[in-house]
Amino acid sequence: MYGFGVDIGGTTVKMGLFTENGDLSEKWEIPTRTRDEGREILPDIAASLKGHISSCGLKAREIRGVGVGVPAPVSGDGIVKGTANLGWGHKEVGRELRELTGLKVKVQNDANAAALGEMWKGSARGSTDLVMITLGTGIGGGIITQGHVLLGSEGAAGEIGHITVNYNESEHCGCGGRGCLEQYASATGIARLARKKIAELKKDGGHIATALPDAGDITAKDVFDAVKAGDKTACEIADEFGRYLGYALANVAAVVNPAVIVIGGGVSKAGDVILKFIEPYYRQRAVFSNKKTSFVIAKLGNDAGIYGAAKLIFSD
Amino acid sequence: MYGFGVDIGGTTVKMGLFTENGDLSEKWEIPTRTRDEGREILPDIAASLKGHISSCGLKAREIRGVGVGVPAPVSGDGIVKGTANLGWGHKEVGRELRELTGLKVKVQNDANAAALGEMWKGSARGSTDLVMITLGTGIGGGIITQGHVLLGSEGAAGEIGHITVNYNESEHCGCGGRGCLEQYASATGIARLARKKIAELKKDGGHIATALPDAGDITAKDVFDAVKAGDKTACEIADEFGRYLGYALANVAAVVNPAVIVIGGGVSKAGDVILKFIEPYYRQRAVFSNKKTSFVIAKLGNDAGIYGAAKLIFSD
Repeated sequence: MYGFGVDIGGTTVKMGLFTENGDLSEKWEIPTRTRDEGREILPDIAASLKGHISSCGLKAREIRGVGVGVPAPVSGDGIVKGTANLGWGHKEVGRELRELTGLKVKVQNDANAAALGEMWKGSARGSTDLVMITLGTGIGGGIITQGHVLLGSEGAAGEIGHITVNYNESEHCGCGGRGCLEQYASATGIARLARKKIAELKKDGGHIATALPDAGDITAKDVFDAVKAGDKTACEIADEFGRYLGYALANVAAVVNPAVIVIGGGVSKAGDVILKFIEPYYRQRAVFSNKKTSFVIAKLGNDAGIYGAAKLIFSD
Repeated sequence: MYGFGVDIGGTTVKMGLFTENGDLSEKWEIPTRTRDEGREILPDIAASLKGHISSCGLKAREIRGVGVGVPAPVSGDGIVKGTANLGWGHKEVGRELRELTGLKVKVQNDANAAALGEMWKGSARGSTDLVMITLGTGIGGGIITQGHVLLGSEGAAGEIGHITVNYNESEHCGCGGRGCLEQYASATGIARLARKKIAELKKDGGHIATALPDAGDITAKDVFDAVKAGDKTACEIADEFGRYLGYALANVAAVVNPAVIVIGGGVSKAGDVILKFIEPYYRQRAVFSNKKTSFVIAKLGNDAGIYGAAKLIFSD
């Protein structure tokens, strides 16, 4: 039995063909055409799926269905109310793709799908209670409890990036709020911390004892590369990142009591070194029952979404 | 069909006989005998249940079972690992009470049971996604998502009272942490805020323009009584309480996306007036998808636990 996992992003749609055991037998991608309110996205996906079904010679009875991850909250019945970067307003993704393909379709938020993927075949294998946080341009969160995605009343659970972590912040977050975790722990947030730190050092005058590039385009990767080289300033920036993130995750854990916390997204590519900055702050603030929660770096990278989307189909 | 709801507290065990529709046909209580590591608690409950079954002339086939709420985290299979005030260490509550009564038994944490009770027959009726917070001596939390209790990996989800809300706090919480919500928004927390406020006013010298009792035994009730009488100092204390609680609940909502937040416990007896201090701070910090979450005061009071415990049996 086969199933498709589809992960719709703002630029590309990633697609994979999986066996029931979670073996990825093929993967490919197509561009996300967001023009005209994104009306071509689902027909493009349907055409691509049909093309692959016929080129692989798959029979209808061999296909369990299609799981889809979308960058937006999803109601239990596969409905999206609006998206930031696909052009969609209210969209019945499940129904439309079902009609276009004739296949069974399950839809889930992409961060939730990534969490399911890491549970199924990634670094949280064997756990049924986990929090996955994706540190990319923004911050995504997916929570699995007793093996199921925590949805919330409107499919908007797991918005970990918009937990307020600093009530004195004067700059605004993309969401309109101030002091959101995303402002300190996303890739852009880390770059922002770095720019502020360097500006501070400059203001103090004197020699800036750091190997960090003294430029507006400093990245999170620059910071963790310098951390690995032992740069003191970079370590101070990473420490600030880790404090905000560790404290925030301790509060998230108080709410959902996970066994495992999975750190994914571009920032996590720096590897285990980031955990050294997060875990001590987490353990300092975690309630007794969460002191032992383990931290792991996500393993599936950009494929977590297609794995989790496929899992939606197989676990039904 | 009938079911029993049992709510085990540190001083008394509350018990109720319910119909399947949630009508409470009888309620009573027995003392909680915590001596000898609490070994008499379950036999006492079993004896009381049997007594009621025979005095009411109930037949075995008319009884669906017994739901039990306990003041401790409960693993999915009715196991308690330890309690703060019952004397129990590791205790297989479900199995033991099943053997003692011959009835089907379901066990849940008491705060979770209270949340289920408010969903079933209280002020969150009709909702499937809610957060209930109980403001008593301490703070309890119960989270329902898609109609089910959010348990977490060790039954310790919903520990809302131990979310850190103030990283600059120097005093310790009962849990050993510092800056926990419980230190500001429980009945004892509010009294603490009041004592600090009054001490501050005294230090500043001059006339203390407040009707609040100038004593160490000031209570949360004193504060809200004075708020209702228009006392300015009391309103400032309530405002501080509301800010900590409103901000914390906005972060909880980012994680679980509830439709309703239910405020219960002794502090909630002050009524809707407390919501005026909580809601504005909540809405200021809630992410977009949670701006409309409604706030309600719990309706079932001390009976929420037995209602929810009984619901455990009927929803299975």
